[in-house]
Amino acid sequence: MKHTISCRVRNRPGVLARVAGLFSRRGYNIDSLAVSAAHQPGESRMTIVVEDAENIMGQIVQQLYKLIDVIQVIDHTGDTVVERELALLKIQAPAEKRMEILQLALVFRARAVDISEGAVVLEVTGSPDKIDAMERVMDPYGIAEMVRTGKVIVARGTRAT
Amino acid sequence: MKHTISCRVRNRPGVLARVAGLFSRRGYNIDSLAVSAAHQPGESRMTIVVEDAENIMGQIVQQLYKLIDVIQVIDHTGDTVVERELALLKIQAPAEKRMEILQLALVFRARAVDISEGAVVLEVTGSPDKIDAMERVMDPYGIAEMVRTGKVIVARGTRAT
Repeated sequence: MKHTISCRVRNRPGVLARVAGLFSRRGYNIDSLAVSAAHQPGESRMTIVVEDAENIMGQIVQQLYKLIDVIQVIDHTGDTVVERELALLKIQAPAEKRMEILQLALVFRARAVDISEGAVVLEVTGSPDKIDAMERVMDPYGIAEMVRTGKVIVARGTRAT
Repeated sequence: MKHTISCRVRNRPGVLARVAGLFSRRGYNIDSLAVSAAHQPGESRMTIVVEDAENIMGQIVQQLYKLIDVIQVIDHTGDTVVERELALLKIQAPAEKRMEILQLALVFRARAVDISEGAVVLEVTGSPDKIDAMERVMDPYGIAEMVRTGKVIVARGTRAT
């Protein structure tokens, strides 16, 4: 099972290396990680997805809190959340296949953001599972390139993280 | 000026810590970072945005290549690219403000993905600049929470990264 942690940190050189180091020293593989500016000036927000960490989530949270420049850590296990990921997929699309690919894209509510002679770039957002499904459906056409952001998450309702 | 690097790496514990360590040891602050599964099995793809690194981009690329489990590094400076970021914003929205907020969201092609008694969660995708603009417009209503994925990028046309 995958677990998601939200982390508010001060935006300083080194904080990402410390967080990544904590996971790697213990041999925990990070499934995905998204770090970007937070709403609070001078802060960043990280969303970390870790696999198979059921028994040690409490430990991970405690150890993250001990790191310099880490402000807040939330383990979202069991929370009711909105989770989203964005992906860009470049699909090999000769003219005769283009319409078929664009029709399929509609099923996933994906949008074509670039079309060239031999390729289409699709933008899609949704749960990681939905993006996995779209990847499988597009695979037979030839995926020249795929880039995913990793999942981000907010708790439903009014609570602020 | 901001620079964007794409990095294909083997999905092993430690590779993220090595990449992050490379940046922090040199005092370069990472503006945003997105890491998730690549299309190639066993690989991840990182998109790293670095600020003010004009003179040392060549150096950074070289040093990334020397790291264990790094397969490919591309500096996108000067490339024609599609760039996208996703954000979830939780806006404080008492009933009497809700419609106003949802109307504004439309301008940014944002979608409401959760509505509760006192808050609305909006999903938006676009360039980082567009998300900055939406953050500024929503700020007076009260942003309870914002989480951004960091930018991802693919080159336009048929070239595969």
